[in-house]
This record gives sequence, structure tokens and C-alpha cells, in this order.
Amino acid sequence: MKILFPLVTADIALFTVQDRNLRVLMVKRANDPELGKWALPGGILNPATDADLDETAQRVLSGKTGVDVPFLEQVATFSGATRDPRGWSLSVLYYALLPSDQVHAVAGRATDAIEWRDAFAPGSRLAFDHAALIRAALATLRDKVDRAALPLHLLPARFTLTELQQTCESILGRSLDKSVFRRRLKDEPGIEQLAGEFLYGAQRPAQLYRAADGFRF
Amino acid sequence: MKILFPLVTADIALFTVQDRNLRVLMVKRANDPELGKWALPGGILNPATDADLDETAQRVLSGKTGVDVPFLEQVATFSGATRDPRGWSLSVLYYALLPSDQVHAVAGRATDAIEWRDAFAPGSRLAFDHAALIRAALATLRDKVDRAALPLHLLPARFTLTELQQTCESILGRSLDKSVFRRRLKDEPGIEQLAGEFLYGAQRPAQLYRAADGFRF
Repeated sequence: MKILFPLVTADIALFTVQDRNLRVLMVKRANDPELGKWALPGGILNPATDADLDETAQRVLSGKTGVDVPFLEQVATFSGATRDPRGWSLSVLYYALLPSDQVHAVAGRATDAIEWRDAFAPGSRLAFDHAALIRAALATLRDKVDRAALPLHLLPARFTLTELQQTCESILGRSLDKSVFRRRLKDEPGIEQLAGEFLYGAQRPAQLYRAADGFRF
Repeated sequence: MKILFPLVTADIALFTVQDRNLRVLMVKRANDPELGKWALPGGILNPATDADLDETAQRVLSGKTGVDVPFLEQVATFSGATRDPRGWSLSVLYYALLPSDQVHAVAGRATDAIEWRDAFAPGSRLAFDHAALIRAALATLRDKVDRAALPLHLLPARFTLTELQQTCESILGRSLDKSVFRRRLKDEPGIEQLAGEFLYGAQRPAQLYRAADGFRF
């Protein structure tokens, strides 16, 4: 089937952190084209129900994963005559962040197999140009964290500064100096100390924090 | 007329510098909708001829202005059911840079009136959501220059460091310290001194530079 009008889709790179590794959600395609290959969750714009493409992305992601994410933002638009065998197509790419303690809530629909892949090496047998889409989404996320934005949406509601540092390191792909990192957080308005709340473990109790009201990544 | 498939356009914010002011090109709409209002140059995707949306943008800009620009890059995609009375529409926004000495080469088509507007205050009677598009394109340009990219595509082929500094200032909307700026350019690989070539004027002769081979904004 050849489409005369461009096919418009929203595709979403949903990131989370597991075992200190940045992961991206992939869905096994259950239909042609690219049947059996792995793709970012995505779906076709429905002009009858979607007020704009942000709504398309939100609807598609909820439908494919069963979760509503706290952060979803546009990365860029990929387009062309040859990237999809159905015809001229246009994919508006989004990236989204899922807290690490909500990974269990993500369930593929009955027909879809899902996998959390290493975001830096998402593997082979990827559908369409989705390897390039993952690279673009990852670059946007890294760039933002490199510019000192705090990826709090990847953390549980209550977190320690060590967890925050490890999450930044997972995204940047390199270690950060602990004392420099802590100094930077001294007057950071995005996080709020939880008075009297600590994480108890093998080490000495660690102060817990939460995202401040109105925090924006 | 209601369109069932989304209307896909490429719109371009074409910037240049005149009299040390950053300007953006506006075209007076000669057709409905929004007849007589001022819009960014833009046009509808033609899947039969455009390999991708970058080609749409290049084709549209050449057609509307008669010039091929040295720099054209995607900003973001604007979409929705209500932004265009013709129906659900999607505009992929680009920004482009035109050297200040090539402004004279830009000619509107016989039917189109054109104007170079102040990029920071493009005025009233703007079509569609193009005021928001201009703000987004301007933010992308400023952000890039703020992060030390050199806007050489806005300058003539041969330029002085004073002209370069003034161009940066026009984009950033603030003055830069001359000695800090000069120090930053000391080992800058993007520019190349033209041996023995100077600009002669009222002041003492000023060394001329050009963009180095392979320079990328």
C-alpha cells in the first residue's frame, strides 16, 4: 500500500535507570512492515482525537505501556520518502523519563513483547531508522544533564544525593567528582531536604530528598 | 475546505543582521487564510518531489527569497487542530542565517511583499502562531551563540573581529567584554586570519578573518 499523504507518527524514547544503567524501552513489532524487529513505542496521529502531537505522544505511550510519565518533551522530527516502506513518513520524536521504582508498572499489551535495552547500545534488529532516533533522544537528554539540569523524574519520590549522582553518571556515561557535585547542590532550588527522613542501610544513614514543588527538568 | 489528513508545512525563520540589529524575514500573505497578515516564509510539503523535510525547507526558502542560504537547521515542530483554519496542521520550523552583505539579493516574488523585522519585536498582525515560532527560533539561535558557537554565516566572507563581536551582541541582546571576547578567539579553530589583509577606515587598519575550511555553526 502506497500512501499519498505523509504518514505522521509520534515515537517515544522512554528512559529509565536500572542497576545504574540507562535503559530505553523497545517494543517488538507485531505487524508489517518490519514485523519482529524492535522499535520505539510509537503510533499514528489521529486528527479526530489528538489536539496536538504532544497528545498523540501521551496517548500512544499510555496505550503501549500502561503508565503516565512525569516528563515528555519533543526532540526533533525525522522525515523522508524512504524511511518507511508504506510511503512518505514523518516521525515526531519525543523523549520521556520513568522513575526507576515504576519500571514494574510498565506492561506491554498482550500482543507486544517489550524489552528495556541499554540506551547506549540498544542492539541489532532495530526497525526503521530507530537507531538514529535513540541516538538523538539520548543526545538531548545528556546535553540537558550536562548543562546541570537534574534528572529527578528518573528517581523515586524520595532519594539520596548518592542516588542522584549515580543517575547523572548513568546518563553522562562518566563518573562525577562527589565533592564538586555536592557543592553544586548546596543552593539548588530543585531539591528539598526531607527533615528527619533517612535511608538506613549498610552505610551510615543517608539524608533523603524530594523534588521541590514546581520543579521542572 | 476541511482537510482530513494533516497539512504539513515547513516554515523558516531567516535571520540576518542590519545596522547591528538582528532581523527576521516576514512575507505578507497574498492568499487566504490570514490574507494580508505577515508570516514566516513557508510552504507545503510535496511528497512527490521532496526527499525529506530539509529539502522542503530549502525549496520553499529558495522559491520565496531567491537565495540559497549557507545554514539551515530544524528548530521544532508545532502542531494542532486549531492553529490553521484549514484543519489539523503541522509546521516543522527551521532557522536559517543569511550573510549581512547578501540582504540585497533577497527579493520577494512578484506577488509577495517582504519585510525584514526586528527579531526581538517582529510587530503585530502576524499570521497563525508565527509569533511563537519566531520566539522559538530566536531562542535556539541565542542558545547556540551563548554556548560559544560563532555565527559566521551572518557575516560577509571577510570580516573583522569587531564585526564578529557586534554580530554576537546583536543576537544575545547584550554587550560583551572586548578583551574576554578576544581572548576566547585566540585558539579558535573556526576562524582564520587573512595574512596581510586589512579593513581600512576611520580607525587604524583592522585585521580581516574568514571562516576556516570545514567550519560548522
